[in-house]
Amino acid sequence: MKQRIQTINNLLKNAGTSLYNKDYLLTWEQPLDMVKATVELARAMRDMYREGSDLSLFKSGLAVSQFRDNSTRTRFSFASACDLLGLAVSDLDEQKSQIAHGETVRETATMISFLTEVIGIRDDMYIGEGHSYMVEVGKALDESYERGVLPIRPGIVNLQCDMDHPTQSMADLSHLVTRFGGFDGLKGKKIAMTWAYSPSYGKPLSVAQGTIALLSRFGADLTLAHPKGYELMPEIMDMSHAFARESGGSFTVKNSMDEAFKDAVVIYPKSWAPMQVMEERSRLLRKGDKDGLKELEKHALALNAEHMDWEADMKKHALTDNALYMHCLPADISDVSCKHGEVSAELFEKYRLDTYEEASYKPFVIAAMIFLTRMKEPTRVLTQLLDRTPRHVYP
Amino acid sequence: MKQRIQTINNLLKNAGTSLYNKDYLLTWEQPLDMVKATVELARAMRDMYREGSDLSLFKSGLAVSQFRDNSTRTRFSFASACDLLGLAVSDLDEQKSQIAHGETVRETATMISFLTEVIGIRDDMYIGEGHSYMVEVGKALDESYERGVLPIRPGIVNLQCDMDHPTQSMADLSHLVTRFGGFDGLKGKKIAMTWAYSPSYGKPLSVAQGTIALLSRFGADLTLAHPKGYELMPEIMDMSHAFARESGGSFTVKNSMDEAFKDAVVIYPKSWAPMQVMEERSRLLRKGDKDGLKELEKHALALNAEHMDWEADMKKHALTDNALYMHCLPADISDVSCKHGEVSAELFEKYRLDTYEEASYKPFVIAAMIFLTRMKEPTRVLTQLLDRTPRHVYP
Amino acid sequence: MKQRIQTINNLLKNAGTSLYNKDYLLTWEQPLDMVKATVELARAMRDMYREGSDLSLFKSGLAVSQFRDNSTRTRFSFASACDLLGLAVSDLDEQKSQIAHGETVRETATMISFLTEVIGIRDDMYIGEGHSYMVEVGKALDESYERGVLPIRPGIVNLQCDMDHPTQSMADLSHLVTRFGGFDGLKGKKIAMTWAYSPSYGKPLSVAQGTIALLSRFGADLTLAHPKGYELMPEIMDMSHAFARESGGSFTVKNSMDEAFKDAVVIYPKSWAPMQVMEERSRLLRKGDKDGLKELEKHALALNAEHMDWEADMKKHALTDNALYMHCLPADISDVSCKHGEVSAELFEKYRLDTYEEASYKPFVIAAMIFLTRMKEPTRVLTQLLDRTPRHVYP
Repeated sequence: MKQRIQTINNLLKNAGTSLYNKDYLLTWEQPLDMVKATVELARAMRDMYREGSDLSLFKSGLAVSQFRDNSTRTRFSFASACDLLGLAVSDLDEQKSQIAHGETVRETATMISFLTEVIGIRDDMYIGEGHSYMVEVGKALDESYERGVLPIRPGIVNLQCDMDHPTQSMADLSHLVTRFGGFDGLKGKKIAMTWAYSPSYGKPLSVAQGTIALLSRFGADLTLAHPKGYELMPEIMDMSHAFARESGGSFTVKNSMDEAFKDAVVIYPKSWAPMQVMEERSRLLRKGDKDGLKELEKHALALNAEHMDWEADMKKHALTDNALYMHCLPADISDVSCKHGEVSAELFEKYRLDTYEEASYKPFVIAAMIFLTRMKEPTRVLTQLLDRTPRHVYP
Repeated sequence: MKQRIQTINNLLKNAGTSLYNKDYLLTWEQPLDMVKATVELARAMRDMYREGSDLSLFKSGLAVSQFRDNSTRTRFSFASACDLLGLAVSDLDEQKSQIAHGETVRETATMISFLTEVIGIRDDMYIGEGHSYMVEVGKALDESYERGVLPIRPGIVNLQCDMDHPTQSMADLSHLVTRFGGFDGLKGKKIAMTWAYSPSYGKPLSVAQGTIALLSRFGADLTLAHPKGYELMPEIMDMSHAFARESGGSFTVKNSMDEAFKDAVVIYPKSWAPMQVMEERSRLLRKGDKDGLKELEKHALALNAEHMDWEADMKKHALTDNALYMHCLPADISDVSCKHGEVSAELFEKYRLDTYEEASYKPFVIAAMIFLTRMKEPTRVLTQLLDRTPRHVYP
Repeated sequence: MKQRIQTINNLLKNAGTSLYNKDYLLTWEQPLDMVKATVELARAMRDMYREGSDLSLFKSGLAVSQFRDNSTRTRFSFASACDLLGLAVSDLDEQKSQIAHGETVRETATMISFLTEVIGIRDDMYIGEGHSYMVEVGKALDESYERGVLPIRPGIVNLQCDMDHPTQSMADLSHLVTRFGGFDGLKGKKIAMTWAYSPSYGKPLSVAQGTIALLSRFGADLTLAHPKGYELMPEIMDMSHAFARESGGSFTVKNSMDEAFKDAVVIYPKSWAPMQVMEERSRLLRKGDKDGLKELEKHALALNAEHMDWEADMKKHALTDNALYMHCLPADISDVSCKHGEVSAELFEKYRLDTYEEASYKPFVIAAMIFLTRMKEPTRVLTQLLDRTPRHVYP
C-alpha cells in the first residue's frame, strides 16, 4: 500500500495543480494525472477499507447533500463516503427550506457552511443549469471564505449535473482499471458507449457524456453509437475527439449498435433522451406546464419506440470480443423491469454481479474527491491513516 | 457485570448456533438460549449505558433504516441503538428512491450496503409480504457477500413484520425478566394477552403474535383472549401451543377478557385487526382501491364496535392478581386519546410510567440484535467495551 | 483562552443558578450573568473551533430536532452544533410520526429520549402555544427522569417559539459584543429595532421581541419603531421597559422609521405581522380554514401595503451614525428577492457580509446552550477540551 500511495503522490505532483479548497465538478477540467490520482486514491481507499483501516479523517464536520432529483445509489454512496471519513450528512431539502434561485443561492451556500467540509450536489434535471448552479455555489463559498466569514472552504462534489457525472464515470474507470490491470490496459481496446432503447423518457445525457469525455483520455478505441436525433452536446463531442487524438486512441461515432459492438471488449448500452427533448422539458418544467410535459412525454416515447431494436442481447453480445457489460444501474431489463428495455434478461444476468462490483467503487470515488478537495497534503495524511489501529474493536 | 457477561457467554454456547453474518427476523427461529442471550445482552447493555460505558463498537459504518409504515418509537429506538454502537443512520425512503418489488429488491439491497453494518426494516402493512421481503433482502446480501461484492454481510434486524415484532416482544420480555427476577420468575405465572377495543382499524397482528410465540417459551400460564373473528395466524397458534407444552407451561385461548384477566399477574390488552380484514386491506392497498378501503374501514369499525366492552378498566383489573399492565404504546386511552378505547384513563395512568420503562428496553434489544449479527465473538468484545474509559468527557 | 474561560466561570458563579438538567427557553428567564456567560461561551467555542479544537464532548447520544415550521438556517445551525459536540441529529417529523397535542406530547417526549442529550424545538406558528409546548415537553422529561425511566434529563433548546428566538438574539448579541468590544460597549449606544415593509405576511413576532427583551439589558438607548397596529406582546414590552431602567439605558417606542434611525449606531429593520393577524391565523390554521386564511392574507397584505415607505435604504441610513445594519436573514430585498421589501439592494449589499458574520454565531450559541444544560461544571469541561489534540488528523 505504501508503494501505491507513492504512485498517487507522483501523479499529484505531475498534475501540477491542487484541488485543495476547490471544487470537483467536471473531470475534463482536471489534468489527466489528477484524474488518475483520484481513481488510484479511490481504489486504494477501497482496499484499505476492506482490510479494516480506520479512515475517519475528521472528528466532526457536516457533509451537506443537495439532491434536486431522486437518487438511491448516489445518496447512499455519498452517505457512506462521508461517514467513512467522519462527517455527518445533513440533507438540504428544498421542500423544507424554501430555497430558490437568485440572491438566495449565494446566501444559502454560506448559511449551511459554517461548520461544513463538503457539499455534494445532484442537479441533472435542467439542461444548461446544473453545472452553472454548482459554479455559482462555489463562487459564494470563495467569497465568504476569503472575507473570513467561513473558517473552512467546503469542497463541492458534483454528484451529477447536466453535463457530467464524474462520480459515476470515475467509478466506471476504477472498475476498468482493476479489470485491465492499470490505465495502460485500456490502450487500443475497443470500448462501445451506446444508446439503448428505454420505455421511459427524460433520462439525463450526463452518463454518456461523462463516459466519452473520460474514457477518450486513455488511448482506447472508443465508439459512441446512437440513433440519429440522439446527439450529445457538441462541445463535449469536440472535447472527446481532441482527447482521443492526444491520447493516441480514437473516437468514432456510429448510428448502429451492431457496428459499435463489433469486436468490442467493453459495452455500455444505456438510454438517454434527445437533447432537444431535455431542453424542451427544462422549459416546460420551469413553466410548470403539466399538459405540455404530457405531450412531450408522448412525443419522446414515440421517438424512442422507433428504435426498439437497440436492445443489448446475447445475439448482439456475440458480435463482441466477449465484452464486459457495464451499466450505471438501474437498467431497464426486458421482461424483468419492463417489457422491452435496454438489455435482455439473459445478458444482464450474466453480468449482474459485475455491475454491482462496478457500483462498489462509487463511495470510494466520492471519498477520494472529498479527500483531494479538503486535504492540503493528501498522501501524507493517507500514510498517517495507514498507521492507525483498525476500524473495529473486534478482531 | 463480568459475571453477567459470563452468563451470556454460556447461553450463547448452549444455543449451539451463531447469528454472525445472519439476520434476526423471528424469535421462534432462534433456539431458546439465543433468545435468552439476546435479552440478557440487552439488559446488560442498558445497565452499562446507565453506568456511562462507551459502547461505540464501530468507528464508522452505515445503519440503513427502511420504514414502510409510520413510526416514532421504533424509529428513535433504532436511531439510538445505532448511534450508541457508532453507526450513522441513513434512511431508505422509498418516496425519494423509486424502489419497487421485483428485480430491484435484490439490486437495491446491495447498492445500499457497500459500507453498511445493519439494515433495519419495518414492513407490517401487507399480510404475507413483510417477512418474505426481509428474507428476499437477506438472500441478496448473502449472494453479494459470497461473491465478494460486499466486504461485509450487513445484518437485517426485523423492526416489525406481518408475523412478528421481535424488538417489541423481547423488550417486553426484558421488562418482565427484570420485574420477576429472571426467566424462571415467569414459570407458572398467569399472563393474559388480550384483544381490546379500538376506534381505529388496520392494526397489525404482529404484537399479539410476537408476544404469544415468545412468552409461551418460559413456562408461564399464558392466556390469549379475543372476540370470535379476531383469530391470529394458525401456524403461530400451533407453535405457541407446542412451545407451552415444551416449557412446562400452558397456553389457553378464551373469548372473554374477564376470564383472561382472572388471577393474572400480567395483562396486555391491545387491539388488532381480524386477519381477513388485513388480508383484504393488503389486496386493496396493492390495487390502490380507495373506495374499497373506505368500505373496508367502515365494515371493520362496525365489527370492532360490537366489542366495545373489551376495555381494560379498574373493575376488570380488580379480577387480576394486582396485574402489571403492559402496552407497546401508543395505547387508545378512553377519554384521553379517544372516546372509547383499549384502556380506561385511570388504569393507564396507574401504570403509565411502567409502560415507559417497558419501552426503555427497546433501544437496547435492537443494539443486542445488531451486536449478535455483527460480532463473531460477542462476549469477548463486550468484555473489551467494559474496560474502556467512560462515554463522556465530563465526570 | 484560559482567561476567557475564567471570565465565563465568574459569570456562571455570579449568576447564582445552574442550567444543568434544565431547559434553555427564554432569555429573560435567565439572570443577566447567565446570558453573558452563554454569549461568552459561544464566542469562545467559535474561536476554539476556528483554531482547530476538538469539541466533541459526547462519544454518542442523540440530538432530536423538531421543526414545526420550515427552516434552513436554524436547521443547519442545530445540526452543526450537535455534530460539533459529538451528537447525532434525529429529526422528529410529525408527518412520519402521527403526533398530536394532548396525552401523546408527554409520552412522545419520553419515547424519543432514552439515549438523548438534547431536544431542539422550533414552534413559532401559533401565538400562545409554542412556548407552552416546550414547557409541557420539559415537564414530561422531568417526571420521567425523576422516576428513573430516563437515565439522562435531555435539555430542551428553544429554536424559536411564539415569544422569543434566543438562538437568534444571542447570536446577534455575540456579533455586537465582538464589534463593540464587550458588553459595556453597548452602553449608551442607540440601537434601532424597527418594523419594515414586506410583501409577505405571517412573519413571527419573536425576532423583534427577542431582540428588545435582550438588548434592553445592556444599558443601550434602545428604540423600537413600527406603524400603529403592529404592537408587540404587552408583557414583553413591559419587561423591556423594566430591563432598560435597571440597566441604566432607555427604551423608546416610535411610529417612524426615520426617527428610530436618527443617530443610531445599529439598525435592525425586520418585518413582522400584527399580533391580531397572528392570533387570527392560529385560529384559522387550527380549524384548517383555507378560505379564511386566504381572506386573512389579503387583509394583512393590504395592511402592510399602507407602510411601503418602511424600507431601509441609503437615504434613511444617512440619518444614522453610520449604523451597522443587522438582519436574521433571509431579508426581503427590494428589486432582488421582491419588488418592494424591507431593505434596498444597495444598503443590503453594503452590509451583506456583516449579516453573514452575524449568522455565523448561531451554531455556537446553540452549542453553548447545550453545553450549559448538559454539563454540571461547564468551565472545567471546557478547560479539558482545550487540552485535547486538534480536531483534524491533518495539520
